Amino acid sequence: MDRRHFLAAGAAATASTLLPANAAEATNDGLFQQVNFFSDGQALTPREYAVLLEKAVQGANFAPDYYSRGGAIEALEAKFAERLGKEAAIFLPTGTLANQLAVRKLAGEHRRVLVQAESHLYNDSGDAAQVLSGLSLLPLAPGRATFTLDEAKEWAARSAGGRVESRIGVLSIESPVRRRQHEFVPFDELVRLTAWAREQGMRCHLDGARLFNLPQHTGHSVKEHAALFDTVYVSLWKHFNGASGAILAGDAAFIEGLYHVRRQFGGGLPYAWPLVAFVDTFLDDYEAHYARAWQAADKVIARLEASSRFTARKLENGTSTFLLQARGLTSAALAERAQEHGVLLPRLPDEATDIPLQVNTSLLRKAPDAVARAFLGP
Amino acid sequence: MDRRHFLAAGAAATASTLLPANAAEATNDGLFQQVNFFSDGQALTPREYAVLLEKAVQGANFAPDYYSRGGAIEALEAKFAERLGKEAAIFLPTGTLANQLAVRKLAGEHRRVLVQAESHLYNDSGDAAQVLSGLSLLPLAPGRATFTLDEAKEWAARSAGGRVESRIGVLSIESPVRRRQHEFVPFDELVRLTAWAREQGMRCHLDGARLFNLPQHTGHSVKEHAALFDTVYVSLWKHFNGASGAILAGDAAFIEGLYHVRRQFGGGLPYAWPLVAFVDTFLDDYEAHYARAWQAADKVIARLEASSRFTARKLENGTSTFLLQARGLTSAALAERAQEHGVLLPRLPDEATDIPLQVNTSLLRKAPDAVARAFLGP
Amino acid sequence: MDRRHFLAAGAAATASTLLPANAAEATNDGLFQQVNFFSDGQALTPREYAVLLEKAVQGANFAPDYYSRGGAIEALEAKFAERLGKEAAIFLPTGTLANQLAVRKLAGEHRRVLVQAESHLYNDSGDAAQVLSGLSLLPLAPGRATFTLDEAKEWAARSAGGRVESRIGVLSIESPVRRRQHEFVPFDELVRLTAWAREQGMRCHLDGARLFNLPQHTGHSVKEHAALFDTVYVSLWKHFNGASGAILAGDAAFIEGLYHVRRQFGGGLPYAWPLVAFVDTFLDDYEAHYARAWQAADKVIARLEASSRFTARKLENGTSTFLLQARGLTSAALAERAQEHGVLLPRLPDEATDIPLQVNTSLLRKAPDAVARAFLGP
Amino acid sequence: MDRRHFLAAGAAATASTLLPANAAEATNDGLFQQVNFFSDGQALTPREYAVLLEKAVQGANFAPDYYSRGGAIEALEAKFAERLGKEAAIFLPTGTLANQLAVRKLAGEHRRVLVQAESHLYNDSGDAAQVLSGLSLLPLAPGRATFTLDEAKEWAARSAGGRVESRIGVLSIESPVRRRQHEFVPFDELVRLTAWAREQGMRCHLDGARLFNLPQHTGHSVKEHAALFDTVYVSLWKHFNGASGAILAGDAAFIEGLYHVRRQFGGGLPYAWPLVAFVDTFLDDYEAHYARAWQAADKVIARLEASSRFTARKLENGTSTFLLQARGLTSAALAERAQEHGVLLPRLPDEATDIPLQVNTSLLRKAPDAVARAFLGP
Repeated sequence: MDRRHFLAAGAAATASTLLPANAAEATNDGLFQQVNFFSDGQALTPREYAVLLEKAVQGANFAPDYYSRGGAIEALEAKFAERLGKEAAIFLPTGTLANQLAVRKLAGEHRRVLVQAESHLYNDSGDAAQVLSGLSLLPLAPGRATFTLDEAKEWAARSAGGRVESRIGVLSIESPVRRRQHEFVPFDELVRLTAWAREQGMRCHLDGARLFNLPQHTGHSVKEHAALFDTVYVSLWKHFNGASGAILAGDAAFIEGLYHVRRQFGGGLPYAWPLVAFVDTFLDDYEAHYARAWQAADKVIARLEASSRFTARKLENGTSTFLLQARGLTSAALAERAQEHGVLLPRLPDEATDIPLQVNTSLLRKAPDAVARAFLGP
Repeated sequence: MDRRHFLAAGAAATASTLLPANAAEATNDGLFQQVNFFSDGQALTPREYAVLLEKAVQGANFAPDYYSRGGAIEALEAKFAERLGKEAAIFLPTGTLANQLAVRKLAGEHRRVLVQAESHLYNDSGDAAQVLSGLSLLPLAPGRATFTLDEAKEWAARSAGGRVESRIGVLSIESPVRRRQHEFVPFDELVRLTAWAREQGMRCHLDGARLFNLPQHTGHSVKEHAALFDTVYVSLWKHFNGASGAILAGDAAFIEGLYHVRRQFGGGLPYAWPLVAFVDTFLDDYEAHYARAWQAADKVIARLEASSRFTARKLENGTSTFLLQARGLTSAALAERAQEHGVLLPRLPDEATDIPLQVNTSLLRKAPDAVARAFLGP
Repeated sequence: MDRRHFLAAGAAATASTLLPANAAEATNDGLFQQVNFFSDGQALTPREYAVLLEKAVQGANFAPDYYSRGGAIEALEAKFAERLGKEAAIFLPTGTLANQLAVRKLAGEHRRVLVQAESHLYNDSGDAAQVLSGLSLLPLAPGRATFTLDEAKEWAARSAGGRVESRIGVLSIESPVRRRQHEFVPFDELVRLTAWAREQGMRCHLDGARLFNLPQHTGHSVKEHAALFDTVYVSLWKHFNGASGAILAGDAAFIEGLYHVRRQFGGGLPYAWPLVAFVDTFLDDYEAHYARAWQAADKVIARLEASSRFTARKLENGTSTFLLQARGLTSAALAERAQEHGVLLPRLPDEATDIPLQVNTSLLRKAPDAVARAFLGP
Repeated sequence: MDRRHFLAAGAAATASTLLPANAAEATNDGLFQQVNFFSDGQALTPREYAVLLEKAVQGANFAPDYYSRGGAIEALEAKFAERLGKEAAIFLPTGTLANQLAVRKLAGEHRRVLVQAESHLYNDSGDAAQVLSGLSLLPLAPGRATFTLDEAKEWAARSAGGRVESRIGVLSIESPVRRRQHEFVPFDELVRLTAWAREQGMRCHLDGARLFNLPQHTGHSVKEHAALFDTVYVSLWKHFNGASGAILAGDAAFIEGLYHVRRQFGGGLPYAWPLVAFVDTFLDDYEAHYARAWQAADKVIARLEASSRFTARKLENGTSTFLLQARGLTSAALAERAQEHGVLLPRLPDEATDIPLQVNTSLLRKAPDAVARAFLGP
């Protein structure tokens, strides 16, 4: 599935009423005007990206990093550490590497790791934890977003029953869960699971690639979530519109020296700043912007349902995704119509009935009425 | 040693007579005017970098990559493959990863790798080849740039004499050798070593991070060098002024599917293009520009020696480095003086007598006389 | 669970009517007379073991091995290869190593391995395949002896759906399954699973530690089972009364050179023969002896049930195990009574109702009536 | 080189005047009468081995192990721990595994290991430390028995100079050095090296496969040697005539739980006792017997040199090896003559002039005069 987050430079955009604060000056020639429903963030075009980068480097205090240390990277690490309530943080070029370095180091001598069978770590990392770090991932709850404490206990018991001691060193949880339409793991379940894990001597990792969406849906803050875990990974490109990059946060002793391992894995970029130079500007008010995006989305949904031509469905434990049914219209036809109005939708096979739409801060670029009109057509 | 390649934005620059073609339009406000003698490339400031990036994305055909595939990345891979005379190439975020993926895959079941004791792979990769890929690196010729065929044979014999068969699968050679002041390995020695290695069933890898400087000094083309090896790595940031990145080239069967391993190691950047968007413009005429840079350097050297206040010394098998002795002037005092004239020099401890200077294409930004004046002072 | 297979030297033994052929001369002082129901084999005492070893080395052609090659070891490898219908075989000191070397080499570049969640490889090998060989084991069908073709397909589909290609290289099946009371995997299921696996490009390994018990229960020969798999492991100490050791059989190209890996893992014993010097004598007629042991066991069961004081239950897809219920008698009390008559039983906690008994060739040491009397008491 | 330690059963033996204490009763039929000069120990024939094994199991307290734990194995571990002055010890099936488990665990997070280029660990272990444990071995002093403190410091400095921190975690030293004709490393050098290593935070391992020969030649006891190192490996088959096996000794915290790793590597033999059941009897007076063997050897040498037909040469820092020159006689001719008198010599190519002979406790089986006559002929 090729949902390009950076759009082709030629994609038309026609009108704009609401620009993100950090692009306020960049008004001319139709930039920053498209709304998208297919990505976690603003799906910047390369030209938009270059405009924001140039603005960032003109800041009085902008300083480049060197081998991913110091300068803008160090500042970003400090900012995220503070926002996550952790002592320290390290930049990594990808979330794949962030998750792996976390579980690799947390595990220590106890090489078993409890994970969701539907997690990114288990499915989408090329078995890096096993192949490169010699960890043994125990995949729980296939087909579901998460596992219960009882299931975790059952596998822990199985693990303990082997003839050769193989202790579980880490509990790793992803929330929201991308492969389950961004469902979140209920906060109470996180509390139970992590409390039990600590009793068992395990350490806990949160794959919070999209962590900053959770407060809106769970009623618990980013820091409350992060506090349950030893380490937390947050993506820099999904919500915050970097080109790539991840933050891994934890206590100071854990993060210290990890840049050596980053380099060992080939992730010590000589200059990383062009990937994340303006990420901090999107971080500042992210949670408020995401909340406003959902307010806008709710208005759009209300307008669409009022037309009787659309039905929208929210998911249990859902976060950024809702499902749209369009009466008498294929996904492709709807996407074509909307694009003419600067609203970009995913294109599904004709037989699809539920179109999963992502709510993100690009909704703030247009008024809800204008967005709704893009769906409804003339 | 913190030789920042990206300079602090505030560093003063006063005059310019010769701009690189690809920055020709960006004339105002003192950009692209500094000459440096401490890096492999132009030591772009962040503002210069942003200017070049913005120009790149406005090209009619510019297309972003997605997870480091397609678009500008694919185009760059194809361009380098052609220049190196190889069937295919893959982008990797760092040279550390490029070297490792090369030797890891070339080795196959034969896990020993002959390397120079002074090579980057042996010294500066955090033992990644050993720790992550289970390879056994045999370090030859400590203290020297390279080893001879006889030394290679001696270690091959030692290897064959073990009670347990441990075959040498790969011969890996770095040239120029950074840790030996960028000395090159003589072409004839490369021919002998690689011919022997192939007879022994080994495969051959060239760490050619700075490969494009070799033709000027060895009289053999880039393609002639590359043809001796199964795989070749070239850096994208050293000569070509990207922020990070590497190319690994080889035959199509070798490169195919390697993007999975790139991702497994955490090197599959969601968007890599901001690191290398304008690298191709520096590649086009690199060899000619580097030759002109040395012509300019020779003029500067002649002027300095004519003053009787400086002595310059070229190295045997040297490439980009020459050594300068300044009579009655510390390295720091010289650097301070030169910086006032927009020429940046390394700063060594006061007791240092030989100052190693790097020749790079930033020399083309000023006339040789102006550069010499920066050393000579008023 | 400490079911000692070698009995303490002092354990009393009172009478014997039926000696194993290969111990026929060693008649004096009460050796080779005990029947046991807790092991896979004859549970030789050290003295019995030493008697058989001395006999073996006096054979005219007996030759020691050297570093586990040549002599008696090579002869044993050849004999097992022939019995399994494979081109070649290699001795390994343990089954743990045999399973690992098999899946490690079969996997090649495709590091995922389908296994039973209840298998020895998954539970009782200290995650060696993951930790030492970087394999990723996918555990199917927890709580059951084996998985169906549909379950295998489901996990293969999950594996194929990852963002990074991680191919399944090996299907590994254990039968009989020790952790499921030695249940066998039905032959037809083996045929279906291995046929599908080969279509998918996987290679197949059989953990047949107790393979030679299968023909009696499945109606298919050892060779028919082995023919479905690329590699087969058989234990040398379970049925064949060695002290330790395993055979791994496969085609000649697979086995060739594997002794180097054996040594790398620390399994190249300088002299292995004292572990398996007389294993061949137990192999020769093993299947016939095991069939006779079950005939004897059936007679014992009939006598016990006739007494109305015992009930015996055979298992679905069972092999060597049956379950005995003793009315009004704890397991410990029964074991004590039987031991006085030279019949050794497992001792379970008092609350246990089903006593799992193992049928093995030690039953041939006494007449069924004598064995039954040991249970029934005076 | 196939120096069979277990001799073919048919090798003739004619007379005996001096039996090892532990074979005193086994007088008949020519067992225990051959003297050999090619092995580290008595080169027992299979029949001799079986005789000793049978004797061992008849001891009142003999108890078998179970999965290499308890019984005779535990007793042997305790005995060696005491003799080495260490808190604890573990049995391993081979020295290859003992060395690997030692350096693997000692290294912890610091994966570099200083070793002799001529060591068994570096040459004869199939690169297990690198391939299976991801360690990076730094091979020092090729062609020599050991390295000096200055050389160690030089490599430590090189290691510290890498761009990525790769700390040296372990100093591993082999003494005597098999590949250098059993030269020992001088005790003072061991003191210096280990003191420095500890200052640097490294841990120290001694590959003392033949450690019990050192006191005779260095004037320092086994315990004095062992005290310098965190862990010590001693072979069970070389001097002590087991079939295979090794002891790894260290402090209790180090040894605890290591049996899980032993099993993970496939070294947890279900019954290990048949490999080492009588090793303790050879251990008891080993040092005294080895000293007597050298007294006997010196008498033999004196007789041979007195004949003017032989010259013997001892090595600097030598242990068990001396070199013999036979005037006008090839190695093969000499060996043939000696074998007729029950003295077994290595057979070298005809052009060899120095015949390396091993002094071992089999010399105590015959009077020195009888041994000398075997060389001198009629």
